[in-house]
This record gives sequence, C-alpha cells and structure tokens, in this order.
Amino acid sequence: MGVKLGILGLGTVGTGTVELLANPTQGHPLLQSVSISKVGVRSLDKFRQVEIDQDLLTTDLEAIVSDSSIDIVVELIGGLEPARSLILKAIENGKHIVTANKAVISRFGAEIFDAASKSGVYVMLEAAVGGGIPVISPLRQYLIVNRIDRVMGIVNGTTNYILTQMQEKGSKFEDALADAQNLGYAEADPTADVDGLDAADKIAILTSIAFCGCLNRDNVYTEGIRQVSRTDIAYAEKLGFTIKLLAIASRNPKGVIAQAVTDSSLSVRVHPTLLPKSHPLASINDVYNAILVEGEPIGQVMFFGPGAGKGATASAVCADILNLVSRIQTASQSNTNSLDPLLVNAHKNECHLSSMAQLATRFYARFLTKDQPGVIGKLGTTFGKYGVSLESVVQTGFQEKLAEIVVVTHDVTEGDFHKALDEIRTAEAIDSIPSLFRVL
Amino acid sequence: MGVKLGILGLGTVGTGTVELLANPTQGHPLLQSVSISKVGVRSLDKFRQVEIDQDLLTTDLEAIVSDSSIDIVVELIGGLEPARSLILKAIENGKHIVTANKAVISRFGAEIFDAASKSGVYVMLEAAVGGGIPVISPLRQYLIVNRIDRVMGIVNGTTNYILTQMQEKGSKFEDALADAQNLGYAEADPTADVDGLDAADKIAILTSIAFCGCLNRDNVYTEGIRQVSRTDIAYAEKLGFTIKLLAIASRNPKGVIAQAVTDSSLSVRVHPTLLPKSHPLASINDVYNAILVEGEPIGQVMFFGPGAGKGATASAVCADILNLVSRIQTASQSNTNSLDPLLVNAHKNECHLSSMAQLATRFYARFLTKDQPGVIGKLGTTFGKYGVSLESVVQTGFQEKLAEIVVVTHDVTEGDFHKALDEIRTAEAIDSIPSLFRVL
Repeated sequence: MGVKLGILGLGTVGTGTVELLANPTQGHPLLQSVSISKVGVRSLDKFRQVEIDQDLLTTDLEAIVSDSSIDIVVELIGGLEPARSLILKAIENGKHIVTANKAVISRFGAEIFDAASKSGVYVMLEAAVGGGIPVISPLRQYLIVNRIDRVMGIVNGTTNYILTQMQEKGSKFEDALADAQNLGYAEADPTADVDGLDAADKIAILTSIAFCGCLNRDNVYTEGIRQVSRTDIAYAEKLGFTIKLLAIASRNPKGVIAQAVTDSSLSVRVHPTLLPKSHPLASINDVYNAILVEGEPIGQVMFFGPGAGKGATASAVCADILNLVSRIQTASQSNTNSLDPLLVNAHKNECHLSSMAQLATRFYARFLTKDQPGVIGKLGTTFGKYGVSLESVVQTGFQEKLAEIVVVTHDVTEGDFHKALDEIRTAEAIDSIPSLFRVL
Repeated sequence: MGVKLGILGLGTVGTGTVELLANPTQGHPLLQSVSISKVGVRSLDKFRQVEIDQDLLTTDLEAIVSDSSIDIVVELIGGLEPARSLILKAIENGKHIVTANKAVISRFGAEIFDAASKSGVYVMLEAAVGGGIPVISPLRQYLIVNRIDRVMGIVNGTTNYILTQMQEKGSKFEDALADAQNLGYAEADPTADVDGLDAADKIAILTSIAFCGCLNRDNVYTEGIRQVSRTDIAYAEKLGFTIKLLAIASRNPKGVIAQAVTDSSLSVRVHPTLLPKSHPLASINDVYNAILVEGEPIGQVMFFGPGAGKGATASAVCADILNLVSRIQTASQSNTNSLDPLLVNAHKNECHLSSMAQLATRFYARFLTKDQPGVIGKLGTTFGKYGVSLESVVQTGFQEKLAEIVVVTHDVTEGDFHKALDEIRTAEAIDSIPSLFRVL
C-alpha cells in the first residue's frame, strides 16, 4: 500500500526532506512505499536547491490539506498562521500530521491534539525540538514507565554558539552575535533566539510530552542572554561554573518552600544559568543541543546532537514519516481508529505551573560597590536578615573606581532573595547590581 | 485484549522488571493490559526482594516457553545456555521476545532473528546495550534514513568507573578495581568487564543494528584496560587527552590505506583510547555509558545515561514490553505476519570486517630509554623510515635511571607502526615499550 505525502513548505527543512526522500543516504525499504503527491510553496517561479517535478508544486495549500488521495501532511512552513489552520483542516480531513513547527505546537498543541484524537490520526513532532536529536520519541516510547522529574536542556543552538564564543574566545555579546549571523546561525532579527522565545517554545513542548499535560505557553518564564557579559562569564569560570541558556521543566521543584506549592506543580522556565563544570550539560558547546531527562527509576539520560540544520532536521521529519508509514501499513484495517497509544499525545492534565517567586534556587549576583571597608559585612548581614545564606563571596576586580563583589548563595526562594536585594540596593555603599543569574 | 508475560529469571533485572510492572512510578495506561503469567526461577525457596505471588514462580522454564497462553517471553537469565535454547523454543512457539542478554544476542543474533522472522515475532533488545539508555530503538526507528558511518561508545560502566578513579584520584588499577568490586560495580571475577569482553558483545550488537548486518562476534578485536597505568593517564592528561575504553564500529575507516579494504568494510574494535578532552565522550565519567552515532545527514548524536543497574535496565525492558503490547493490540488481526518493519532486525548482509593491520589511526607510545643523547633522534629516524610521522614527542619523566619518552603519531596503519616498533625495540638505547594505545 503506497502512502502519499503532501508537503507544506519548501524552505530549508522542506528542501532537506524532499532531498532525503528522493536520495536517501540509506535506502530503508519502507521508503519505497512513500511518494510525494504535492508540495505547497509560496511561489512557483523561485529557484529551488532541490530537483523536483514542477508538476508537484502548487501555491494552493488548502487544496493539499483537502486532497483525498493524501495520507500524511508534512507541515514545514513554520509560524502560527496559516500553519495552525492548515494542520487543523488536514486533521479534519483524516490526514496524519508530521510537523517541525515548535511555535504552533507550543501554543496550539492542545487544540491540535484534541482534533487529532477525534479524527483518529497521529501528530508527529520529533523535529520540533532538538532538530535531528531523537528526544520526543524516546520520551513517548522508551521512558514511559518512568516518573519524569526534570527535563532540562540546551535547546537553542544560536545562543549556545554565542555563549561558547564568549566563553572560549572572550568575545563580546555583540561580536559573537554578529559572528553567528554571518555564519547563518542567527537571523537578521535575532529576538526569538537571543531573548529565549525559541527555547521557551521547545520547553513548553517537552513539558507537555514528559508530564503528559497541557500548559499555557505564555506562562513559561523566559529570560534571554542579552545581559550575560564577559565579566560574568569570567567570574563564573573562576568559581567553577559555565553559563548556559537552560530550558528547565521540573516537578516538585527541589526546595520549593512555599506551602502553597503542591507536589504536582511544575516549574517551567528559560534563563541563563550557572552550571557546575562537571555537569553533563556544561560541556555542550557551539550550536549543539542536548536534553537531559531525570526520572525514576532511570536516573539521568541525555540526548545530544545537532539542534538545527537542513539535513539533521530532515532526518527527524523523515523518521516521523516512516514511523507513520509503518503504523499505517500494519494497522488493523477493520479498526482504523485504534491508534498506537505510544504515539498519541497524552495531554489530559492541565499542568499547574508554580510562580518564579516560589522557586528555590541558588543565585549568582555581581555588585559594584564603593571601595570602603565593611561592604562585604553589610551584604552578609542584609542577606542573613532575609534568610539568604551565602556559599561564596569573592572580591577580585575593580571597574573604574568601584569594587566588584560576586556572591553565590545557597538555595533560597526568589521572593526572599529579592527582598534582600531591595534592601541592599538602598545601602549607601552599593553602586549597582549589574548581574543576577540563577545557579543550578 | 490482555497480553501475558512469561519472565525467565528473577535476578537483579528480573526483580526490577517485576517491581516496575507491579508498581510503576508512572502508570501508563498500556500497563493495564499486561499481566505476568509465570516467572521462571532456579529455586522456589530463595528469599525475594520483590513481593510476588508464589504461585507464579516455577522452576520449569521449558514450560514457560511452551505455555500457549503466554504472548511475550522476557528472557533475563543471561548467559548463553539455556538462554539461547529457551529463546529459540519460545520463538518457535510464536512468542515475542524481550531480552537483556547481550551475550546470547551478540553470538546467536542471526540465528535468533532468522527464527523470529520465520515465526513472525519480534525480538526486542533495548536493555542489552546501554542499560536504560534508549539507543537500539532510536537507531532502528529514528535514525533510519541516515547512512551510519560510525557508532562509538563507552558501553561498560565498570571499566569507566575504574578509569575515572584512576584519572581523578590517581588510584592504581588494582585499588580502583577493588573499589568497584566493593561498590557492586564489578564482579568477583572481573574478566568480562576488565578485559573488554562485555564491551565487545555490545559493539557487536550495535554494529548489527546500525549497519543492518550480521557479524562474527569473535572477530571483534578486543583489548581491555589492565595495561592502562597511572603514568599513562598522567601523560595523556598533559597532552590534552583522557583515556577511555571505547567500543568502535566504523564504516570506511578514515584513512584505511590498504587497497584491499573495500568501501563496505567495517572496523569493529574495543580498546583503551586516548580521546581529546574536547570530545563529547571524554567527559563521560564513573559508571555512566554513552553512545555516539555519526551519520549522514544527521552529523553526531549521542545517547548518555546509566549503562546498568536494576531500575534503569528494567526501564528499558518494560519499554520494550509496552512497545510490543502496542504493536500486538493495533496489529491487523487478518495478517498476523505483518510485522512493523522498524522493529524487525535487518541482518541480511554479512558485515565484512577489516583487519586491525589495515586500520589507520594515531598512536600513543611510551618508551623507557637509556638517558643518553640522540635517543629522540633515533626514534624519529626509525619512525620516519616506515612513514610514521610524529605529532608530538615529550620527554619529561624518569623511572629509576631510565628516561621516559612519550610519542603521539599522526595517522598510520597499524602494520607500518608495528614494523617501526619492531626495529626500535632492537636499538641499544631502548629499554622497553611499556605502553601502546590508539588515539582518536
């Protein structure tokens, strides 16, 4: 039985997918069952990097999702609309979906999964997180008997490249960003990457998969890397840490003190984080991604690889396609609604997200102070007053006439920490607090 | 439709599996379809760590694999016999197999897969390599459209623990081994781990899966870690390397010079290897395992996690069980022989393994020489004569009255390198060559 694909979009990932389907580096026999029926594009006249029968191209994307001969719609146009509407219409028409679209899944996942469940079709999204790295499928199919406690990762290659350049070459943020743009790792408008929005999309999806629930993407706390300076990277290095942009979803956040936080609540957030150098994620450099999953009884498992790129992402898209083909071909004909439960997105529960104020974490703070005796004492006393205990206090540098003091705390709730900072800010000896980061 | 399990063996992994099935940390709905019919044990009287209905226990393992009510046989007794015969009999009787047995699969995989293919049943083996780390399933289901060029990993936790202790604490091999034995990481007879046999079983299985072929397990070149000394670890450190026991299977080995080696040949081997510190596998420490897969177009992906242990391995066994349950329940009733091609072990090709003499690699060699002028010159001249070019030569240490010289070469075939060494050994100034390792 042949399986017919309708592909929406012939950009980077679309081109990679068409290439890989036409000329697979490894000819899996299942590929012989697959054919491309239509490819939806914006313009028919554009020069294409890939050899493709012009007759397959169409600008009528609606026609693809309505075409009764098409079994699987592969959505690779990205963005929210028309992607969302096209996916929903394809589902309504009984088509399975393969998508690499993190934006639409992170925001409209619940709506899309509900519709898919009603229509008895699959929504496959391996390529939406971690590019070519298999992470969605291991979570859904191979870590299923585990209670997942934390999913944490470096899921944005652009920011990881920038931070690696700053760390290894001492580059300034602006120069590392320009470098990333020249290499094609960063867009002309780098906002989605640099401000953590792309990472927030991805951790929202991982949260939904790992904790089998749905969540409001807008409630993911998101902080980008613009405020990470070379100075902080150097201090972190001295203290045994590497600064990474981490996306974190954790159950029962370790040390949540506030009584109101129930055991079933999750903390989901994206922010620059000081990681101990011995941590498995600390050595993930350049554009690589890695996702660390912690659970019971598995312990820690990590998935590492290329988080983006034409070939790698196409590898995930094609794998999703072949997994669907294998299901379509072996499924019971008499019961077309009997979906493989391991490929279905369970999203019944609403995930309860705790607020950042309730989160207990270690902090790194850098102070610029007047160079006068007793400043460290003042800091220590004020922190102590709010129950903030200090792990280390370092004074090494000067910036012009101001002394630079760096503090790393033990676990403290964000609420208490900020109360202490508010009081410290009013002290006469304190000039400013240029940096504030969480420490894992 | 309920699925009935017959479990063979109630040792560490068997106990973990029964525990996890009875009290899953995460109650996947599919688990409700699974029940344990029989558990085969050696003795009925033994104290069990896990609560289990005594009526389920039997010492008659043959009866389990012949029981017509049982759908899946979970083989967790390990070793070659009776595991092989029981698996084959179960397959003959139409039962699907889940196994964690690396020894039997690495040696009798082809026979078992052939039998399974004839009977139309699955053989699932995620737990046989990398404990709880999903690696077999991503290779079979998610990297399928890639041409795999190299699979390389730290697949034995015991030796990795020993090497980590030697590296980080400067322990002697014997002390680190005793330490591993006290912690339960190493057996009283550590041969299988320390001499690389366990790692060779695992790379044989990974080779078969990644390159879709079968191979003779006995042809895997295997060298253990007994000859790794603190001295070499310290020199490696100085030169920017970490010593790891790597299991490697590579296509078209980079730099194979011998004309006779065809493009389709593989190099499959286990040996201590000097890894550049920046390599993703260099920071995998303690009992952790990691498997790095390189392919086209994916690039590099790595799977990291606990390579052994009750809960982690049981996690993989239970995932295999649930993947079978999902296939059994959604499979076409009318066509019971239509297996999901992504779960079937393709092993049609005989893998052609190149000999070690044909392998081109960098080498590390440590020489003890008389402390006289011209020794380094002599070394350099002799190496040059055989086309061995040197990357670095370091003379720093003394052992009693002998000077210690460490050499790292550029890529050279093993054959040429050994010819040079044979001549060097005859030189009057050379006392001995205590260590010789490959460098990645």
